[in-house]
Order: sequence, then C-alpha cells, then structure tokens
Amino acid sequence: MVNLNKVLKMHEENTGVLDIQADFDITSRGDLAEAYTPGVSELAKLIAKDELAKNKYTMSGKLVAVISDGTAVLGLGNIGPAAGLPIVEGKSLIYKNFSGVDAVPMAIDQVPVNELVATVRNISKSFAGIHLEDISAPRCFEIEEQLKKELNIPVYHDDQTGTAIVTLAGLINATKVVGKNVKNLKILMNGVGASGLATAKLLLHYGIENLTLVDIYGKVTANDERYNSYQREFSGQVRQAEGQTLDELIENQDVFIGLSEANVLSAEQVQKMATQPIIFALANPVPEILPEIANAAVMATGSSQYPNQVNNVLVFPGLFKGLLETGLTSVSYDLQIKVAESLSNLTETPTAEKIITGVFDKGVVESVSGAVKSYAQKN
Amino acid sequence: MVNLNKVLKMHEENTGVLDIQADFDITSRGDLAEAYTPGVSELAKLIAKDELAKNKYTMSGKLVAVISDGTAVLGLGNIGPAAGLPIVEGKSLIYKNFSGVDAVPMAIDQVPVNELVATVRNISKSFAGIHLEDISAPRCFEIEEQLKKELNIPVYHDDQTGTAIVTLAGLINATKVVGKNVKNLKILMNGVGASGLATAKLLLHYGIENLTLVDIYGKVTANDERYNSYQREFSGQVRQAEGQTLDELIENQDVFIGLSEANVLSAEQVQKMATQPIIFALANPVPEILPEIANAAVMATGSSQYPNQVNNVLVFPGLFKGLLETGLTSVSYDLQIKVAESLSNLTETPTAEKIITGVFDKGVVESVSGAVKSYAQKN
Repeated sequence: MVNLNKVLKMHEENTGVLDIQADFDITSRGDLAEAYTPGVSELAKLIAKDELAKNKYTMSGKLVAVISDGTAVLGLGNIGPAAGLPIVEGKSLIYKNFSGVDAVPMAIDQVPVNELVATVRNISKSFAGIHLEDISAPRCFEIEEQLKKELNIPVYHDDQTGTAIVTLAGLINATKVVGKNVKNLKILMNGVGASGLATAKLLLHYGIENLTLVDIYGKVTANDERYNSYQREFSGQVRQAEGQTLDELIENQDVFIGLSEANVLSAEQVQKMATQPIIFALANPVPEILPEIANAAVMATGSSQYPNQVNNVLVFPGLFKGLLETGLTSVSYDLQIKVAESLSNLTETPTAEKIITGVFDKGVVESVSGAVKSYAQKN
Repeated sequence: MVNLNKVLKMHEENTGVLDIQADFDITSRGDLAEAYTPGVSELAKLIAKDELAKNKYTMSGKLVAVISDGTAVLGLGNIGPAAGLPIVEGKSLIYKNFSGVDAVPMAIDQVPVNELVATVRNISKSFAGIHLEDISAPRCFEIEEQLKKELNIPVYHDDQTGTAIVTLAGLINATKVVGKNVKNLKILMNGVGASGLATAKLLLHYGIENLTLVDIYGKVTANDERYNSYQREFSGQVRQAEGQTLDELIENQDVFIGLSEANVLSAEQVQKMATQPIIFALANPVPEILPEIANAAVMATGSSQYPNQVNNVLVFPGLFKGLLETGLTSVSYDLQIKVAESLSNLTETPTAEKIITGVFDKGVVESVSGAVKSYAQKN
C-alpha cells in the first residue's frame, strides 16, 4: 500500500517528477554565440544538407516520446489522455533512472486512428523512438502497425511487446522448475486484449503451438464476430483445445496465463489442469487467482507482493537503451526472444519461488541491452 | 565569429544541449510504488475526476513546447523541420538557463495549416504553453490564430510577439535620446513578414499611427494582390506616407525599422530622413545598413557586434516565466506594452550608445516576469 499524501507531495513538489536539464550554462556572449545564434545557424545548414545529422547534434537523436491516449490506463479503463499522464511520466522516470534513456511523457487526444498516426508522424522528427503506452485494443494494433510502416525510428507498445517478452522469460524458467519441455506446453491464454494477443503471438513464434485463447465470451475462433480481426486471424494459426468456456478449456492445460481481470480463475479449475500446473495470473493489482488459493507448482503475478513478479520494468529500460545504441529500428520476434532468453538466463537455478530476476537485481539493464546489441551485430 | 568545431563538439557531446532530469532516484520497491504503480494509479484517478489536477502533479503543468516547422529558419529560409531543431533546442536551453522554464524542442512536419493545428492540439494536454518559432508568414498568422482559439494554454510566436516587444522597448528609449515624442514619430517599416507585421501592429496599439509599410514590391496597400490578407487589412489601419518605393517613402521619416534583408538601405536614403534619424536595422546576421555607414542619431541592430542589440532573448524567458506563474493564457497587446515598458525602464538614462539593456544585464528576467505578474493582478 502506498501513502497517498506522500505520493501527492512527491509529484507536486517539482510539478511532476521530471525536469529539463541544461547541459551547460550560457554566461557570456561567446557562450550564446555557440549555444544559440550564430552557432545554431551553422548546425541548421548542416542538417539541411544531411537530415540524419540531427541525430548527432540535437536532442532528437536520443529522446524517446512515451505516449498514451488514455484509452486503457492500468486496470482503470478509458479514463482519458490527461489521466494517462502520471503513468507515462512514471515510465519516463524509470527510463532515466534505470537506463539513462531520456524520455518525455506525452498525452495524445483520443482522435481517430488515422489522425493519431498523423499526429505522431508529424512530430516524429523530434524523437529517436516512440514508446506507446496504455492504448486500448484493437486501436493499438492499427496504430502500431501504421506507425511502424511510416516511421524510421523504433515504435514499441509496452503493453504488448514488453509484457510478451517478460512473460516468455518467466515461462522458460517456470517450465525448468516443473521439468517439462516448454515447446510442448499446452497453454490457455485468458484475455486477448493488447497484451494477451501480443504474448500469444510471441509464444507461437517461440515454437509453442498448443495455445488456446479465451476471454469473457468464450474461446476465440476465426468466425466469431465478437472478436476483432486481429484476434480471429491469429486463432487460425494455433492449435486450440476442445471446448468453449474457460471452465471447459482449462482441462489438462499445463499453463494458465491470465492477462485479464481479478478473480476469474477458481481453485477448482486449477484442479482440472495437468500435473504441476503453472499459473501466471498477471491482472493488476488483483490477480486472476490469489497465490494462496491457487496451489500451483509455479505461480507468478504482476504484483510485487508475491514472489515471481512479471514486470515490464525488467524489459523496456534496457531494450530502448539497446535500440538507441545500435540504431535498430524494429523489435522483431527474434529480438524479443533473445531479450526474453537473456532475462531468463539471469536466474541460473530457477525455483518455484524464483523464476525471474527482480527489477532491482544487478545486471538486468545490461543484460537486456546487451542482448539487443548482440542481436544487432548478427542481423 | 564562432568556432564551428567547438560548436559541433558541444552539441555532439551529449547529443544536443539538453537532457531529461529525474527529480529523484527509484532505489527500492517502496520508491517504485510511489513514483510508479500503484502510486500513479491514484494520481490517474484524481486527474480523471479533475483534469486540471494534471497541472499540479505532472510535468505537463510546467513544460513548454518550442515548436518549428522550419519554414523560415533564422535568415536561412525554408530549410525544413529537422534543420529547425538546433534553433528550437537553443531556445529551450535559453529558457532553462535564463529563467528556469522547462522547455522541450520539437520539429513539426510542413503539413497544411489545418493539420499542423490539429497536431499541436492533439498533444497540447502534455504542455503548459506553446512557443512557436521560425514559421513563415502568412502561415504563422493562421496557425497562431487557430491555436489561440482552440487551446487554453498560452500560444506565443517569438518571431512575432518577441520581436515586437523588444523593438518597442528600444524605440521608446531611442526617442528619448533624440528628444522626440514617440507617438508622433513617422515610421517606415521595411519588411512585412511575421516579425514586421507583428511589430507594426504593436506600434499601432501603442499609439503610433504614422506607420508606412514597405517591402521589396513597394508600399503595402489594401488592394495590392501581391500582399496577403493580413498585410492588406492592416495597411488600412495606419497613416502611410506618400510614394511607392522605399526610396520615395523614406523621405522625412523619423524612424526606419528593417525586419528584412541585408544592405537594402543606403547612406543616401538615410540623408533624406528627418533630423536625428533613428535606424533599427534588424536583419540578421547582416543588417539593412551597417552602423558605420548609416550615420544615424540612434542605431540599433540584431547583432551583438554593435551597441544596441535588439534581441528576443530579452523577452521570451521572462515572459513565459510570468505566464506560467500567473496562469495567464493570452499575451494581449496591453501586456506586450507593459513588458516593453518594463524593459525600456531598465535603462534609466538612455544614450545613443545604450538604448536597451543587454541580455546578460541583471534583472532582465525579473523585470519582464514582474511586468507579467503585475499585469495579471490588475486584469
């Protein structure tokens, strides 16, 4: 639990938690001539001839925009762009604190997808990367797709890619604990929003084909009009279990991954799973089932109150550090897998109580950014 | 003259001249809970209920976006948005150095006015103010007008308002030097782009009606289709001299204000002016006429190489500091006049060699922001 007064005070003291820092003081006409005119005039001419020089000589070569439209803020739903600001500012703070990446928080109005994409494109020369945050599905899929097509800087939606990577990292080690082969796992994915679908896609790319997708309406199938085109299309690519409801589909599954809502899985349903069940109940702040009643062989949540916290903070600071240092502009599935493996490797001997490294453990950022660099060298 | 290698090095060392600064370190789970989730979740809920709370608890309550589309960069013309980045970054550095205002440099693509306005509007919740920079006329007039209508934060185009204020400040003291009455001055304004027109408008609001507008095509008149609607409309509001060309119009003028191009005024033309001529040759880096050949009673330029530098740096840091501190959202003509007067008052006994305070003189920012505060209290 946090002390709300303390939170308010710390965010009010400096009007937010970030400042702009000047890299030096202008104290003389000579300084002004170098830092402003006529110095900048020479730089402007140089960039006019070679646009990429901006990345060397201006902040745009290092600055990441952390952008939300507030359509899916944490577990709070669509609470508007302004209300998303504390979250994107918190992420920007984590960037600076954890990996030295300069990031600026931005709210963007809830305009139609085309206009949102145009808005980000129109300001993209100001940035070295775009971190999307808390944008609802399926809107987020279209936005990310379009931006990736139109921009030549990395575009990364943390709710999708970050969650997918850290979940895979945890899953690799969880299967070691139970002595199963990760690629043969039968996995039931409950919740097929932005993070659920992105995670399922990464698992499939990793080689896990027994993937069943279910949500509050039942199993996702290719012809079910209650699902969006992204969900339906993907459902045709995996081997799904027989049945319709979560209660039917859970039977004999090795793994339950919830990226959905609090308390949707019961202890009785866990009983129906295969031996040594693995449960990732990642709904926040209250998981799909509480660890104390799940009685799983390995249990992970999104909360820091239990062991095995599956937390995107393990991923994005090091990932973007690596992207900026290598100049990579896309986060391919292969790269996501390399990053997940680098994270899982940080826990040498996984146990039921410790399948994944903690956000304050040493070497996390270095390991993740190192994985990006090594990937970039080979590709 | 600046040393280009030194300029490149200083801008390359930290990839630009600005960084994001974290107001504190997250070193424990407790810190993370306060600075990120679940702390930010409480803040998000609070802002969802009361949007204005964002200005108290997030960076958006203090951050100014310094935005250019690169259509009119310094004296270099339309060299593109990326090439405008060193200028907006330099201005952001000056904001932080001179008045502690947090500003972030942004390039915006050269899209149609409607789309540019929509883009800025769509991200405006992220900011406490919009500083427009180096946008060509008449585009800049429409953009500023639209944004002022649509946003409830200050929108300020430095090339217009900043130039107008500092020019008026200098002019007030220059007329003291020559012993004339400022409101009776006959002024020839050469150059009717963004800065020229904005300056003329402010002078008229100040009470100077004998204002003649001329540019490379001749005198601006209401029916001349070579001029845009902003220029034509304004020309009907002032008392212009007889004649068509600069050479004809300069006769008997008390003041020449150039916001145009290098070397367009000759010594012979200055000879035709009224006694004790005042010349503000503000083209940069080379003025409309060099002081050594002008032989004026009072001479000002935009350059730091001569006495009487008319420099926007005198205005914008203190002005925006004042706007942010008072919550004023518009920079009215009355406010512009108050700021100009506060600047001219800083020079107690103006002389031909010193009509205006220098950017490194003490008290400039305090005086300007003080003028804004005192205006806000009365209005």
